[in-house]
Amino acid sequence: MKPRLSVVKIGGNIIENESALQDFLKDFAAMEGYKVLVHGGGRTATRIAEHLGIPSKMVGGRRITTRETLDVIVMVYGGLTNKNVVSDLQRYGCNAIGLSGADGNTILSDKRPVKEIDYGYAGDIRQVNSAAVKALLESDMTPVFCAITHDGKGQLLNTNADTIASEVAIAMSEHFETSLYYCFEKKGVLRSVEDDDSVITHIDTTVYEQLLEEHIIADGMLPKMHNCFNALQRHVHKVCIGLPGMIAGKEQRFTTLTL
Amino acid sequence: MKPRLSVVKIGGNIIENESALQDFLKDFAAMEGYKVLVHGGGRTATRIAEHLGIPSKMVGGRRITTRETLDVIVMVYGGLTNKNVVSDLQRYGCNAIGLSGADGNTILSDKRPVKEIDYGYAGDIRQVNSAAVKALLESDMTPVFCAITHDGKGQLLNTNADTIASEVAIAMSEHFETSLYYCFEKKGVLRSVEDDDSVITHIDTTVYEQLLEEHIIADGMLPKMHNCFNALQRHVHKVCIGLPGMIAGKEQRFTTLTL
Repeated sequence: MKPRLSVVKIGGNIIENESALQDFLKDFAAMEGYKVLVHGGGRTATRIAEHLGIPSKMVGGRRITTRETLDVIVMVYGGLTNKNVVSDLQRYGCNAIGLSGADGNTILSDKRPVKEIDYGYAGDIRQVNSAAVKALLESDMTPVFCAITHDGKGQLLNTNADTIASEVAIAMSEHFETSLYYCFEKKGVLRSVEDDDSVITHIDTTVYEQLLEEHIIADGMLPKMHNCFNALQRHVHKVCIGLPGMIAGKEQRFTTLTL
Repeated sequence: MKPRLSVVKIGGNIIENESALQDFLKDFAAMEGYKVLVHGGGRTATRIAEHLGIPSKMVGGRRITTRETLDVIVMVYGGLTNKNVVSDLQRYGCNAIGLSGADGNTILSDKRPVKEIDYGYAGDIRQVNSAAVKALLESDMTPVFCAITHDGKGQLLNTNADTIASEVAIAMSEHFETSLYYCFEKKGVLRSVEDDDSVITHIDTTVYEQLLEEHIIADGMLPKMHNCFNALQRHVHKVCIGLPGMIAGKEQRFTTLTL
C-alpha cells in the first residue's frame, strides 16, 4: 500500500489575513503524514508594485506578467510570503522548506505561447519532478511551493497556484495515495451562490455532469472543478474543497470530489 | 576518507554585476564534487527600500535592521536574488535549491542582544543543521543560501553572509573534507592595499601572527581573517580568498589559508 500524502492549497485571502493564516498554519503543521503546501499570492504584490511605480497591465480583464511585474512577484511570493510561511511552520513544529519550481528543478514549465493575448512571463506546467519532491519528503521536510516555476533555461515564470497544486498531486500519485485540498473562503461547492450553507458534500462524475447541465457550476468554479476532475482522472485519490479548517476536521461540511 | 565539499561565498559586488555573475555561476555549476553557495546582498535592497520610502537607519556607521528593512531584505535576498541565482544555475546544469536558514531548519540563530546598540532583526548563528544540508547534497541538490536565518520561533533574521559561509563550512566538516572559498573584488589578501598584485599566496598561523604584528591585516580584512582562522581551527580543511575565477582555476594567484 502506498503511503498517504496531502497536498494543500491556500488562496491569497488566507495569506493576507494574519490571524486566519496563523490558525491555518497551526492546523497544517499538526496534519499527520506526508504533506505539501502550495500558496497563492494575495494583493501584497499589487500593492508593492504600485509603490514601486510599476503599472498593472491588464488585457481582456486578465493580468499580464511583464518583466517588472515578475520581479515583484518573485520578491513577494518567493521571498516575503514564502519565507515567512516557512518560518511560522517551523515555529509550529513542521520542518517546512520553501520552494519555487526552480528549486531542485521541482516544476518545469513553458512560457505561455503568444496567441491573441501575450500573457508575458506566465508559465504552463510541463513536468513536476516527483522524485525530487519525494526525496525532500523522505528527508523529513515539508515542501512549501509558491506560485513560481521555471523553464530550465534561466527564466522564472508566474504560474497559477491551483494548477501547481493539482499537477503536484497528480505527479506524486505515482508514489503516494494523494489527497488534494483546496482551502478558500467558502464552505465548499454551493448549490446556490447566495446560500453559503448550500454545500454539495459529495460530487462524483455523475453528479458533476448533472451540475454542469443544470449550470450550477459556473464562472470561477468551472476551471477549479475542471482541475479537480483532471486530477482524479490522473490517479489523485480524492479532492476536497472548503474552508481552511477542514484539514483539521473543524468543518462539518465541505465538498469531497471522487470519480 | 571523507568526501570533498566546497563552500563558496560571493559578495554583493558580483551579485550586482550581471555579466560577472553569469561568468561566476557558470564556473560554480562546473565545479566538481559536493558544493554549497552562499550569496550576499548587494545594493538592490537599499534601492528598493528607498523606492518604498523605507529609511535606512544607521547607528555608529552600522546599518540597523528594522522590521520594514527586514521585509525588504527577505524580498530581495530571499526572493529576487536567490530565485534568479537558482534558475540560472539550473540553466547551467547545476541542480540548485535556494534556502534561507528557516528552510529545512538549516540555520538557527539568535536575535542579537541589545547592548550599546540595538541592531534590530540581526541574527547571530547558534547552529547549522548539518544533517539537513547533507541530506540535500546526497539527494543531488546544491544548496544556495541567502543571508537570512531564523530563530525557530517564527522570526526571520538578517545574518552576515561571510559568517553563514564559515559556520556552514565548520558544521559540514563533520561529514566532509571542506574547503571554504571567499570570492570578492580583490586578488586575495594584499601585502600593500595600493598594490593589487601584492597577493600573499599562503598564510598559515605563523604568517598570520606576523601580518597582525606588522599591521598588514587591518580594517575590513580583520574580521574576514578572524572568520577564516576560526573555521580552520574548527576543522575546515582550507580557506581560499580571491577573485571569483579562482574556483575554476582561472586565477594564477589568490590567498590560501591553512593552520
